[in-house]
Amino acid sequence: ADINAGKAKAAVCASCHGADGHAAIPTYPHLAGQNAAYLEAALKAYKAGQRTSPQAAIMKSMAMPLSDDDIKNLAAYYSSLK
Amino acid sequence: ADINAGKAKAAVCASCHGADGHAAIPTYPHLAGQNAAYLEAALKAYKAGQRTSPQAAIMKSMAMPLSDDDIKNLAAYYSSLK
Repeated sequence: ADINAGKAKAAVCASCHGADGHAAIPTYPHLAGQNAAYLEAALKAYKAGQRTSPQAAIMKSMAMPLSDDDIKNLAAYYSSLK
Repeated sequence: ADINAGKAKAAVCASCHGADGHAAIPTYPHLAGQNAAYLEAALKAYKAGQRTSPQAAIMKSMAMPLSDDDIKNLAAYYSSLK
């Protein structure tokens, strides 16, 4: 996985999850330091429509355009943050 | 929310999410320090069947017996960990 490519893709994530992966809005999760394999599985679940709460609709639309490589890179990037 | 009650309920969570909320298995998320409101929403989504990936089936069965108070207490407990 390419952490720098993930960082570039993450610009759009920052408004909810924080520039450093620490979400200021309490209904959103922190991502910094999270296990990369979990982040990858979560993004794929959103993309596949396997998370269907009203809040999940936001993440489905964010995940839809991501390739498997994008997802791996984003997961590696957030996992690398503290 | 009652952090000590959450801690008592969390015994069954530790095998996957770690005794201190740090998951040793990379496909499972760390919970320590996560935003409580997000943890509460996630547990309610699992309970309501709004997360439907194969892996989510585990969490659905864990969340089913939890009351709203249990969920609030668990979320407060894990959010309080570092």
